[in-house]
Amino acid sequence: MTRPSFALLMVSVALSAVLAAAPAPSDWLAPYRDAASRLIGEALSTTQAWQRLAELTDTFGHRLAGSKALDDAIAWAVTEMKKDGLDNVRAEKVMVPHWVRGRESAELVEPGPHQLVMLGLGNSVGTPPEGIKAEAVVVSSFDELDALGKRVAGRIVVYNVPFTNYGETVRYRATGASRAAALGAVAMLLRSVGQPGLRTPHTGALTYADNAPRIPAAAITNEDADRLQRLQNRGVKLIVRLSMEARMLPDAESANVVAEIVGREHPEEVIVVGGHLDSWDVGTGATDDGGGSIAAWEAIRLMKKLGLRPRRTVRAVLFTNEENGLRGGAGYRDQHKAELPDHLLMIEIDGGVFRPRGFGFSGSAAARALVKDISSLLAGIDAAAIGSAGGGADIGPSVESGKIASMSLDVDSSLYFTIHHTMADTIERIEPADLAKCVAAIAVMSYVVADMPQRLPR
Amino acid sequence: MTRPSFALLMVSVALSAVLAAAPAPSDWLAPYRDAASRLIGEALSTTQAWQRLAELTDTFGHRLAGSKALDDAIAWAVTEMKKDGLDNVRAEKVMVPHWVRGRESAELVEPGPHQLVMLGLGNSVGTPPEGIKAEAVVVSSFDELDALGKRVAGRIVVYNVPFTNYGETVRYRATGASRAAALGAVAMLLRSVGQPGLRTPHTGALTYADNAPRIPAAAITNEDADRLQRLQNRGVKLIVRLSMEARMLPDAESANVVAEIVGREHPEEVIVVGGHLDSWDVGTGATDDGGGSIAAWEAIRLMKKLGLRPRRTVRAVLFTNEENGLRGGAGYRDQHKAELPDHLLMIEIDGGVFRPRGFGFSGSAAARALVKDISSLLAGIDAAAIGSAGGGADIGPSVESGKIASMSLDVDSSLYFTIHHTMADTIERIEPADLAKCVAAIAVMSYVVADMPQRLPR
Repeated sequence: MTRPSFALLMVSVALSAVLAAAPAPSDWLAPYRDAASRLIGEALSTTQAWQRLAELTDTFGHRLAGSKALDDAIAWAVTEMKKDGLDNVRAEKVMVPHWVRGRESAELVEPGPHQLVMLGLGNSVGTPPEGIKAEAVVVSSFDELDALGKRVAGRIVVYNVPFTNYGETVRYRATGASRAAALGAVAMLLRSVGQPGLRTPHTGALTYADNAPRIPAAAITNEDADRLQRLQNRGVKLIVRLSMEARMLPDAESANVVAEIVGREHPEEVIVVGGHLDSWDVGTGATDDGGGSIAAWEAIRLMKKLGLRPRRTVRAVLFTNEENGLRGGAGYRDQHKAELPDHLLMIEIDGGVFRPRGFGFSGSAAARALVKDISSLLAGIDAAAIGSAGGGADIGPSVESGKIASMSLDVDSSLYFTIHHTMADTIERIEPADLAKCVAAIAVMSYVVADMPQRLPR
Repeated sequence: MTRPSFALLMVSVALSAVLAAAPAPSDWLAPYRDAASRLIGEALSTTQAWQRLAELTDTFGHRLAGSKALDDAIAWAVTEMKKDGLDNVRAEKVMVPHWVRGRESAELVEPGPHQLVMLGLGNSVGTPPEGIKAEAVVVSSFDELDALGKRVAGRIVVYNVPFTNYGETVRYRATGASRAAALGAVAMLLRSVGQPGLRTPHTGALTYADNAPRIPAAAITNEDADRLQRLQNRGVKLIVRLSMEARMLPDAESANVVAEIVGREHPEEVIVVGGHLDSWDVGTGATDDGGGSIAAWEAIRLMKKLGLRPRRTVRAVLFTNEENGLRGGAGYRDQHKAELPDHLLMIEIDGGVFRPRGFGFSGSAAARALVKDISSLLAGIDAAAIGSAGGGADIGPSVESGKIASMSLDVDSSLYFTIHHTMADTIERIEPADLAKCVAAIAVMSYVVADMPQRLPR
């Protein structure tokens, strides 16, 4: 164990003072104040997590399932985790869908030609090589689409639905192509599902229904959607051409990356901390979700570095293929089915590694009371909130199958949907100090749950 | 003349009250309070200027010199100005350079491949069809470049100079290619000259020196420049490929668009208000400088609508080719050489039509005292500041040749260099109420200078 520097000691002393001043939540936590102080001090006295995330995103860039970049990133993570001295480092094979974007473009042919700034939607089919050229009709809701009915046959339907919240507007991305195709539309364009940016398109997955033709679909920017809307409102006829080489290739081999701090008393009892290493094929996937992956990894590296080996196992999982298939999450559930009864808690970090506020939690009232106690150790970094629900896409299949308590890291998400699934999802959006706090919060929470005398109750 | 609505009357009454409450600057202004009130009321009681700018930018998009879009926009402006009933509407022919971008891309080949988000620089030469592939070297100043000297031979030089202010950093865009080429570099990449955006590249013109080979040059995003810098700092070798079809075609015919309110007593004495109708070939040129063009045009349309015909002529000029040649400004000077002695004031609007603050002014002390008096009429819209210097690129040649007093509209420019020369320069950046205030300020200033008893002194 490295001798702590003076600066680090001062951080620990300062944090201990803050923690000592907070109202005592429960006596059982007393033995964990020192470990929490050391984990927080270690996380907050370097920018290592940010540097590691920069190395990941600078070197490999974006990492869509099936891409060489993701394969290389997986191999790199395994190598580096071994160098970190973590336990049982391994890549657990999963087959993943392999969608490729290819070249793509959209233009307003009349009045025009004018380039429309776009990104094809993940899983979309492509167009013929010459593209699809058709009259476009702009609608602002499914109701408007349905009112037009068969009049959209042969047209390109443009959904111009302003972003309210993700759950509400993502429906148009997920199902809009098939709903338009069922009425005879030949392609679909979507106002990007995200907050206004700088003519910034947002990609993301669509799902084709079985009962409609599969038509190509792409996101355009808020600005271009509003432009089409204004032109249509002025009575101007819109001719649009969409060209996409997008196609689905045969499934490819990929892997979840796993590393552990094996428990000293109950190695079979597991707390999972995880994010997803794959990303959309734009930007560098720093926020979605390189940051979550690195934060989970760094949390257990801190334990290793500080010589903190809890009673139970803490397992970091860097899932694959969250974005367009969720095969990593499903694969983990299937490969660890026998262990799920001994999975006590799964924590997912997939909302960005911005300034942390605490955790969302889903589980029993008894378990909630305990994690609420533990969260008091994070008051000094202002990350002690425990929200009403937690979870995550990657841990979802296991949590559901094993009835496991689940958590998500809660952060200041004000920037999240500005950069979500865009080219602007890069390391610049992440502050080193915010990421360090995220790591600290995850490390303290997972360590104490793994080490406390009692099993976190189901 | 249309009968003013009740709402408009209330605006006028309210503004009159504000103006009446302000300290009286000079008695000579008293006769202009009513005209100012009517101009401001008319401007601020509709969103017509914004609607007209939306029609321009939606219909024609970006408008680079030599493009069909600019030709069409010029023809549209002439038609609409005639419909507005303006005097002496005409297009004054000017030959302009005709640079075309073509397809272009840049990628980090090693480590990679990773797309670099880029825009070729205006006036740049292209690459061979297969692109230029070479090792890249990142420098953060001309000093660093010079220190490397001939070691950059055969390399692609990447200038990673953080934006401070335009004047300081634009030097790298203007002269960086030739300075690198003089040392043997084969291409140049530039950190975009602008405030950080969302992985948003900024184009703009370069100027080749005579004593160095002409090498292709492009702007990359701040994020990509920082990524290359971090990789280089880690000792990683960088191989970059740049592909650009950019080329200069023979000069093309274009025009300045001119419209007037002819003076009732001294039609030969002229106040010019103007912006430039051309734009870079990205975005829709709403801020740079569709907004300035529309504001100048709308200012004289208000006079026409309100039946305000001043003693002298107010002339709106929508210049061509500001961005990559300044042939519009030079052409105006040459074609109006004989009239320049009777040009009393030239006002340019080319800093965006954001919330106006007043005007910058360059001219004699006597003239300054008068425009300062006039500016008090704009106190009610908080646009009464008169700054220490005014001018503009398009009016520059005439101002210099004729020793003419010059003004620029001063606005809140905090957003300007976020969107300057980017795809995000669209109508969404402009608030209708801000543009209305800009129109009001220009209308009041130009009207009173044109109508006041005395000639604005040289």
